[in-house]
Amino acid sequence: MIDQSVGDVMTRSTRTVTPDVTACDVAGLLAEHRIGSVLVVDPETDMPIGIVTESDIMRQVATRADIGTVPVESFMSSDLITISSDECIHAAAALMKEFSIRRLPVMDDGELIGMLTTSDLTHYLPRIRNTILRERNELAG
Amino acid sequence: MIDQSVGDVMTRSTRTVTPDVTACDVAGLLAEHRIGSVLVVDPETDMPIGIVTESDIMRQVATRADIGTVPVESFMSSDLITISSDECIHAAAALMKEFSIRRLPVMDDGELIGMLTTSDLTHYLPRIRNTILRERNELAG
Repeated sequence: MIDQSVGDVMTRSTRTVTPDVTACDVAGLLAEHRIGSVLVVDPETDMPIGIVTESDIMRQVATRADIGTVPVESFMSSDLITISSDECIHAAAALMKEFSIRRLPVMDDGELIGMLTTSDLTHYLPRIRNTILRERNELAG
Repeated sequence: MIDQSVGDVMTRSTRTVTPDVTACDVAGLLAEHRIGSVLVVDPETDMPIGIVTESDIMRQVATRADIGTVPVESFMSSDLITISSDECIHAAAALMKEFSIRRLPVMDDGELIGMLTTSDLTHYLPRIRNTILRERNELAG
C-alpha cells in the first residue's frame, strides 16, 4: 500500500493536441475539461513531443502574446519527463520535486496511458494514513 | 510524522492583490513568481475576500474576455476554503479532494500565514514513506 504504483493512482484519460493549435484554443480545452495540461503529439506518429500547462499559457498572457494566434509548439515544454505505470508513487513524488513539476505523463512501452498529477497523489494521502494506522494497530495488537 | 501539521509543510509566503487588479497583471505575478494563485484582499481591512488561480484566468482567456481590463473581483472565487496551521496534513488532503481544489490558504486567528498546495503535500510523500519503513523496521525488531 505504501508502495502503491503510479498506475493505480494516475488519471487514465489524457487530452492531446497537435503543435499548430493556438494558446487560446488550449485554454478553452483546459477550462472545458477542468484539467491543468495537455500533451502535444506529433500529428504523423501520434507520439508525445511536448506538454503545455496552465502556467505556460499564463506566461503567454503575461507577456501579452497574441494568444489567439500563437501556436503551442512555440512555447510548449519539449523536455518531457515521463514515468512508467509500475513505478511506485514515492518515486513519482520525488521526480516531481526534483524537476519542480506537477504532472507526469505515464508511458508504458512507448505508449501514453495516463497522467499523474500532484492532485492524484494528494487525494491518495488520507488512504495511506488509514492503512498505516491499521497496520500499527495490527502490529501492536 | 504521519500526522504532520499543515504549518510544517505549507509555503509561508503568500502573494495578495486588491480586487481592482486586472487578469493580465495577475497573470504577470503568477508567471514572475512561479506560483499558481494569489489571494484577493480587502484594501481597507487587508482581510482575504477571494482567491484567483491559474484555472480562473484560463477560463477568462478561453471566453476571450479582455484580460487587460477585466478586474479579478469579477471572476475570483469568493467562497474561500481555509485551514488552520495546526490541522494535520491528511485532513487538508481530504478537504482538497472534497472541494476539488489544489490550494488552501492557511489562517490562524483570522490572520493569513501561508498557503498549502498539492505540490507541498506531494513533496512530502517520500519523507512519509521513509519514516514508515523505519518505523516498521523498529517494530519488527
